[in-house]
Amino acid sequence: MIGQSGIAVRNILRADPASVVALGQYGVATIHEAMGRSGLLAPWMRPIFPGAKLAGTAVTIFAHPGDNWMLHVAAEMLRPGDVAVLGTSSENADGMFGDLLATSFRARGALGLVIDAACRDVRELAEMGFPVWSKRVSAKGTVKATLGSVNTPIICAGALVHPGDVIVADDDGVVVVPKAQAVEVAVAAAKREAKEAATRQRLAAGELGLDVYGMRENLHRAGLRYLESEADYAALGQAVR
Amino acid sequence: MIGQSGIAVRNILRADPASVVALGQYGVATIHEAMGRSGLLAPWMRPIFPGAKLAGTAVTIFAHPGDNWMLHVAAEMLRPGDVAVLGTSSENADGMFGDLLATSFRARGALGLVIDAACRDVRELAEMGFPVWSKRVSAKGTVKATLGSVNTPIICAGALVHPGDVIVADDDGVVVVPKAQAVEVAVAAAKREAKEAATRQRLAAGELGLDVYGMRENLHRAGLRYLESEADYAALGQAVR
Amino acid sequence: MIGQSGIAVRNILRADPASVVALGQYGVATIHEAMGRSGLLAPWMRPIFPGAKLAGTAVTIFAHPGDNWMLHVAAEMLRPGDVAVLGTSSENADGMFGDLLATSFRARGALGLVIDAACRDVRELAEMGFPVWSKRVSAKGTVKATLGSVNTPIICAGALVHPGDVIVADDDGVVVVPKAQAVEVAVAAAKREAKEAATRQRLAAGELGLDVYGMRENLHRAGLRYLESEADYAALGQAVR
Amino acid sequence: MIGQSGIAVRNILRADPASVVALGQYGVATIHEAMGRSGLLAPWMRPIFPGAKLAGTAVTIFAHPGDNWMLHVAAEMLRPGDVAVLGTSSENADGMFGDLLATSFRARGALGLVIDAACRDVRELAEMGFPVWSKRVSAKGTVKATLGSVNTPIICAGALVHPGDVIVADDDGVVVVPKAQAVEVAVAAAKREAKEAATRQRLAAGELGLDVYGMRENLHRAGLRYLESEADYAALGQAVR
Amino acid sequence: MIGQSGIAVRNILRADPASVVALGQYGVATIHEAMGRSGLLAPWMRPIFPGAKLAGTAVTIFAHPGDNWMLHVAAEMLRPGDVAVLGTSSENADGMFGDLLATSFRARGALGLVIDAACRDVRELAEMGFPVWSKRVSAKGTVKATLGSVNTPIICAGALVHPGDVIVADDDGVVVVPKAQAVEVAVAAAKREAKEAATRQRLAAGELGLDVYGMRENLHRAGLRYLESEADYAALGQAVR
Amino acid sequence: MIGQSGIAVRNILRADPASVVALGQYGVATIHEAMGRSGLLAPWMRPIFPGAKLAGTAVTIFAHPGDNWMLHVAAEMLRPGDVAVLGTSSENADGMFGDLLATSFRARGALGLVIDAACRDVRELAEMGFPVWSKRVSAKGTVKATLGSVNTPIICAGALVHPGDVIVADDDGVVVVPKAQAVEVAVAAAKREAKEAATRQRLAAGELGLDVYGMRENLHRAGLRYLESEADYAALGQAVR
Repeated sequence: MIGQSGIAVRNILRADPASVVALGQYGVATIHEAMGRSGLLAPWMRPIFPGAKLAGTAVTIFAHPGDNWMLHVAAEMLRPGDVAVLGTSSENADGMFGDLLATSFRARGALGLVIDAACRDVRELAEMGFPVWSKRVSAKGTVKATLGSVNTPIICAGALVHPGDVIVADDDGVVVVPKAQAVEVAVAAAKREAKEAATRQRLAAGELGLDVYGMRENLHRAGLRYLESEADYAALGQAVR
Repeated sequence: MIGQSGIAVRNILRADPASVVALGQYGVATIHEAMGRSGLLAPWMRPIFPGAKLAGTAVTIFAHPGDNWMLHVAAEMLRPGDVAVLGTSSENADGMFGDLLATSFRARGALGLVIDAACRDVRELAEMGFPVWSKRVSAKGTVKATLGSVNTPIICAGALVHPGDVIVADDDGVVVVPKAQAVEVAVAAAKREAKEAATRQRLAAGELGLDVYGMRENLHRAGLRYLESEADYAALGQAVR
Repeated sequence: MIGQSGIAVRNILRADPASVVALGQYGVATIHEAMGRSGLLAPWMRPIFPGAKLAGTAVTIFAHPGDNWMLHVAAEMLRPGDVAVLGTSSENADGMFGDLLATSFRARGALGLVIDAACRDVRELAEMGFPVWSKRVSAKGTVKATLGSVNTPIICAGALVHPGDVIVADDDGVVVVPKAQAVEVAVAAAKREAKEAATRQRLAAGELGLDVYGMRENLHRAGLRYLESEADYAALGQAVR
Repeated sequence: MIGQSGIAVRNILRADPASVVALGQYGVATIHEAMGRSGLLAPWMRPIFPGAKLAGTAVTIFAHPGDNWMLHVAAEMLRPGDVAVLGTSSENADGMFGDLLATSFRARGALGLVIDAACRDVRELAEMGFPVWSKRVSAKGTVKATLGSVNTPIICAGALVHPGDVIVADDDGVVVVPKAQAVEVAVAAAKREAKEAATRQRLAAGELGLDVYGMRENLHRAGLRYLESEADYAALGQAVR
Repeated sequence: MIGQSGIAVRNILRADPASVVALGQYGVATIHEAMGRSGLLAPWMRPIFPGAKLAGTAVTIFAHPGDNWMLHVAAEMLRPGDVAVLGTSSENADGMFGDLLATSFRARGALGLVIDAACRDVRELAEMGFPVWSKRVSAKGTVKATLGSVNTPIICAGALVHPGDVIVADDDGVVVVPKAQAVEVAVAAAKREAKEAATRQRLAAGELGLDVYGMRENLHRAGLRYLESEADYAALGQAVR
Repeated sequence: MIGQSGIAVRNILRADPASVVALGQYGVATIHEAMGRSGLLAPWMRPIFPGAKLAGTAVTIFAHPGDNWMLHVAAEMLRPGDVAVLGTSSENADGMFGDLLATSFRARGALGLVIDAACRDVRELAEMGFPVWSKRVSAKGTVKATLGSVNTPIICAGALVHPGDVIVADDDGVVVVPKAQAVEVAVAAAKREAKEAATRQRLAAGELGLDVYGMRENLHRAGLRYLESEADYAALGQAVR
């Protein structure tokens, strides 16, 4: 049950490493499109420094507002290639994560953190090159008093994340790929990327998307009226206002 | 009529190129002041990379939430020196614009984009040096299903923009100068800039704005009381709280 | 009385310079923790460029929305090592501060500005290396028509600031240390920093926070259940959903 | 020019009274649809009491944040049947309007107020039955120090309003009908209303919109797949998660 | 897969009717507590009129911003006792639902709607007594152009909802109870309610929660210091500020 | 020190009861003006039912996000005529307060609650006639794990509140009057009210504020230009746009 507290699952099934590597080659936008335009976390999740990028497997954390106890429990579950992903039981923007936890997470092999709350020590994290996607930056400290869970399904920034799912994050945001679909999404992303490369060339050469994508017919059918000038527009009888 | 869908105007009257060049020498804040403190788009419009700057003529786009079809229609209307400016029929923060459209826009000679929604592929756009001012960054994809308009008057981020108006944008935000006022605003901006340069020197030398701007008299008339110490303040009978 | 207009106090008691220097060695998060997790301004206060950092004594400014008159009055009160701190009588995000005021403030010896409103000319400010923490960036100009106060107690971004208090600000935000507590907070911060350095080493070596901080006992007492696998979790009788 | 200060226009052309009466028969949603889904103010504009409703001609006010001077200037311009409509030069939520101004406005024959800022004395206004649509309720007082304008074109809550335009407001929000289109929009609204009445009867009788609007064909063409059961959904090969 | 478009499932397993009736006796807060403080939708979901209350089984709808096509598809799936629950692929606040759809939904036996977007015709809906919980009220119309899904798992206002789950909503918000847990949650809610009734009596008689809940020991252990007066507080050496 | 945890002060100096009664006769807006436009809590503090009104003395509570333990500690400190006022250490919108606590508070003689977080059981509270001003309504439950303080100075919704200060709240919001100023503010409010009554009569009789307040001279001096018609406005050389 989503939102259940007091559970920590030690061993989880992670997405196939090869599929993680494959997905890591593509941007978040490409993967989101390859999944039928799904899987994105809400756009308020922003990297704490530009150029941050990662692809890894999720260790999920469910925490309560102003309480980062479960991040310590999660540290023990992290393995090389993992990404910690934290959702909260209600809206919160306290600084649950800083450079000490980052030091610990890195020592465990974690690649980064996705947290639907705030983080702090952002300068130190940038210097460490430890990437975090968070809702906010805040120095606000937290307590360690209330149990949440580790490695149970969570909602993070409006997206459902299961332990072991693939997380890809870059400057555009964060996307989650269910572990069972990782391979097929990687294949679809590759196809999309290839197609886009061809399109990019045509567009760079000055061709219009209207022609490359063959949109003119649909626009016409939808009723788009082309006018030659602003005067024609005014002549429609509508005051230009 | 603002908000009318289904129209695309091919030829528009653009502001005089010389006035665009002239305005491009000044910052957004200076131009806004030179217009009698008007013309700004809402401050939620932020550049996707620091140092972005442009001055160009507006090709306007009216679009519906989650639908970027009209950006493709607009591409055909863009000419060298233009800036695409997109307003929506209701609040939206989907990623309507990415590197493929930027490739196409650049091939058409466009200088950048101002979009009251989100854009994506921000790393690629930064690498291309294609500047975008947007409300948000989001990887969220859009559809191409509903007609809006191109080159009709729009509201973008709370400002009225006519096709052909001058758009100036920098790290401080975005300002629109009506094409009919472009010359006089450029002149006013030049005067303001000259005056500010002189003021800057005096302030740098340690003179106070109170004296440079002659404010002491007005402050006195408005009733400002100078107290010598915090003790005097406490003695006013008001607990320091 | 908080929120009283029409007063400017010329001479204030400032925190001991040595304590300011001492506090300047620590990050905002560390100082906040050293104060018993208090003293932070709201996290919407962000630096206008990355890497900004300062520690100084507060000259306080109380202003009304859309009116920056009091910033000019404050300039005269600024001494080397001061930080101007501005709170408003109601929510506002106009660009009250720009490069001219920064030139004047710097000439007076001020280190930077903390403003619960917006600033502009952010590129010029970054080039000057004049740090500002603000709620927003906005080119919107203001008037000089209504009296506020200078060097009276204010609320800035939800925190109470007295003239002469210590302000420390970095990439994580802004913290205010009451002048009477500056020395003891600096001592507490030093202790905390020393302790964290030792902890950091242990965590970097792969020890877990669970052990370093001795959390296992408390987690057990609180009832945390460790499960070996996702299958065990499912077997709890709760559908994995 | 939108946003110009210091102008008050005494006599304006108002929409034809008969068209105002006609439009007043319809809800805001109906009129918005009858205008091709345009004309709405942003949805943050809410009535201060439920059941508020009006239709009248706009007297426009442009004001600066925290300053309600222009509302007094506008009072003189109000005639029976008018609605005061106020936009600001930047985001503001101060209580610019209360029961004294409402008393004055009512004495002038005004029907209500639409204000992209806050109002106060909401209990008294409700008792008077004087309707206001505002962004917020706030007791925060304002000054009378800076000129704006009266009866010039304004942007209010993201919509362009000219003096004399028709304003219709109800529990769903506020819509502006350009005076030149008032008659045709009233006709279109009447048609729409008639059509909806017939549809309502069919739907109330249990017919489905799919059939009433003939949507099945389009849904099929768009590729909608009907599955008989959740088992069939699971069998698609996608874990139900 | 959450967020998949183009699917409509005709027959779903609904929670046991008796458990729905049982849950309908309790408030949203009670049920949320009975579920171990889980299951709530985000608090931005508000009823469109005070006193609205319902308990029913979810028919889920996944829709795209500004597009209400799927609400029509869902109408066919609704059975007596159902509640339509709509989540969107990205943040949206357009008025997707009004009195015509309400008429249709009611004819199908639906009890109400929970929609993470806006609704309109709120006055008519209140007169019909058709309850809606939404993010906003907006007259903004939508299109019918893009497929979403019906009766697949969705995220609505940050909560995971499966078709057939129990939805309880009142003035405090909305809670979802997974169908498999409906019976046990109803039992737990009954117990909690009984216990609260006893507590209420004791509190009404003047007993303190400190004693009723036996908190004094824990407060003491946590270190709470009771001071007799504000003088004692000041004497702690901390300026009362 | 603001934000110190772990203290509960048993006996506080309360504002003179007569001054509380006197202040209770006036609205929040009037008192705010009588204090020189100061003392307001932020406008996000809204009553949970219309018509709520109170005037009492503050028992202050400092709490951490998601933790309502201190509300139970505060109950013991409440005396007849008190108003509980709660501020938090960081932004929070959990439902810290419901009908059980209200039952207890009422049994202690408290008049109501002002809470910069959320409350729940709002229907029951309305039926009890127990008024609450909060930031939000939310059913989200909280824990009792972390010490805050009772009867120390707090920041609530951006305002400084000392124990014993007068709190007046109505449909317009909440204002705090420092206990030392309660008498003089009551006198000033009475004067303002008397003056407003006279003004109201003149305005109701059709006199203009321009004349009642003698504004014409100042408007003229500020440079307001009256134009006779929209044609004159257009003739200024500015396109009506």
